[in-house]
Amino acid sequence: MTQQFATEDFSTWSKGVLQHVEVTLDRLLPAAAVAGAGGTLNEAMRYAMLGGGKRIRPLLAVAAAELAGGTHESREVSELTMRAAVAVEMIHAYSLAHDDMPCMDNDALRRGKPTVHVRYGEATALLAGDALQAEAFSVLAEAAPTADAPERAASVVYMLRVLARASGAHGMCGGQAIDLASVGRSLGQESLEQMHRMKTGALLHAAVLLGAASAKIPDATVEAALLRYSRAIGLAFQVVDDVLDATADTATLGKTAGKDQADGKPTFVSMLGLDASRRFALELREQAHAALVPYGVGALRLRELADLIVVRGA
Amino acid sequence: MTQQFATEDFSTWSKGVLQHVEVTLDRLLPAAAVAGAGGTLNEAMRYAMLGGGKRIRPLLAVAAAELAGGTHESREVSELTMRAAVAVEMIHAYSLAHDDMPCMDNDALRRGKPTVHVRYGEATALLAGDALQAEAFSVLAEAAPTADAPERAASVVYMLRVLARASGAHGMCGGQAIDLASVGRSLGQESLEQMHRMKTGALLHAAVLLGAASAKIPDATVEAALLRYSRAIGLAFQVVDDVLDATADTATLGKTAGKDQADGKPTFVSMLGLDASRRFALELREQAHAALVPYGVGALRLRELADLIVVRGA
Repeated sequence: MTQQFATEDFSTWSKGVLQHVEVTLDRLLPAAAVAGAGGTLNEAMRYAMLGGGKRIRPLLAVAAAELAGGTHESREVSELTMRAAVAVEMIHAYSLAHDDMPCMDNDALRRGKPTVHVRYGEATALLAGDALQAEAFSVLAEAAPTADAPERAASVVYMLRVLARASGAHGMCGGQAIDLASVGRSLGQESLEQMHRMKTGALLHAAVLLGAASAKIPDATVEAALLRYSRAIGLAFQVVDDVLDATADTATLGKTAGKDQADGKPTFVSMLGLDASRRFALELREQAHAALVPYGVGALRLRELADLIVVRGA
Repeated sequence: MTQQFATEDFSTWSKGVLQHVEVTLDRLLPAAAVAGAGGTLNEAMRYAMLGGGKRIRPLLAVAAAELAGGTHESREVSELTMRAAVAVEMIHAYSLAHDDMPCMDNDALRRGKPTVHVRYGEATALLAGDALQAEAFSVLAEAAPTADAPERAASVVYMLRVLARASGAHGMCGGQAIDLASVGRSLGQESLEQMHRMKTGALLHAAVLLGAASAKIPDATVEAALLRYSRAIGLAFQVVDDVLDATADTATLGKTAGKDQADGKPTFVSMLGLDASRRFALELREQAHAALVPYGVGALRLRELADLIVVRGA
């Protein structure tokens, strides 16, 4: 059984996890079948969450739980790990719904479908995003009957702390603010990396930490390794996004192509050129792998996810 | 000392608490003096939070901590209680910043000052609200070095659970969605009460529960009493708001008067008339007092806050 798990190929593993994620989301999101205005809000929340996306954050969370758990004796992914996975994805989805709004990026298309405000109106998109953020913290805080499991309460607090920090002014929202202010200005590579580290990287890092903590609160050594890994894949993710934005068409991307350039936003491609950007992504993959060396087979899925992130833009 | 505390008058008590709240907010909000775009975001968050408001939710939280703590031996308000107080106020402030935006209520004036989007632009107002919501969960999750204080972790998880539930689709955001959908339609009194119970009441209830839990996780009996109390003051709060909206002028209110009526929103005044609305508010105050009877002197401040809520519209 152990053997079988370790050798299950990535595609089978990720398909299984993604199925589990969809089922968990469906179970934890407010029911869409409520009558009246509440029903519309819930429907918009589900629209923002479901129907696609790469679900890279949930995959990272589950992979990190494997590393932290240190064993593959059970193929069962724990309820707390699944809650970590969907909580991070809820934060991600709310941020997309808000970023797409007219006062921000004004994007009409996301994953090949109308964005939330196009489909449900701006007010409902705003509210659905707000409610999804609350829901993200809720699915974690509701995880534990904590009175009789004090250890679990400590894990849940750790997870909530990491998620809140990564989402707010010191993380995703702060990065978004820098992004807004940078339109039409030329940022240096260092500032650009800092912006992405907050805007995208913080939440990818949170996915890894939450997943790990759902199995076992990481000690300082594991935290340091996961930080190195997360920084590398976070940056790689953005470099590859920029490469795709410059080379793929709208149909392939499922969102408006060439938009960053048209908006005068600085990108790695505009700064380094296409070839050097691709080389940079491969170098970052090596950094991610290097961080995982001490963790052997437990780090298999995290290694494969670093490959996935880089290969989609190769 | 005990004697002195119990007889300190309400105005002295509330002034002391409010001062403590402002200091705590200033300490816990991200620094405004950061250079660049992050600085603008942080400044907008502070603008949304500081400079006024009645701070009724922080007062409720501190008052409920007194009830749950059951003693007045120390005049010290604990750090966890203050974090409860400001966390709830952050959720409240973020919801105002978003509600005021053009796609929602489109209000230019709040507490006599330009609303956040008027002052900082829509994109920053949206982000500042998002970041404040994250910050609310952060100040709670960061409260406890939980590893060596498992009991405290349980309290923090309880508080986070209550706050997340009250903020999301089953609480404030859900109520807001019903409110949006009700413009120009005639709601019955029951639907109107349900809407307000979610939109405003859920967060007032959360303030009371969080404050209580910061002293001691409430048992089922205390929870039931606090729910009765919260429902009564929550509804009274809204009835009084409607009375003020119909009778006071813009300068007195610090926000645009008569707006609900102009927007075709159903109000208690439009439904019951002015006199019956005032009588209803007084009746709700009696209900709030009745819920507190078993708690004697420990409930003093909660009783006085019920009075305050009703008297401002008498």
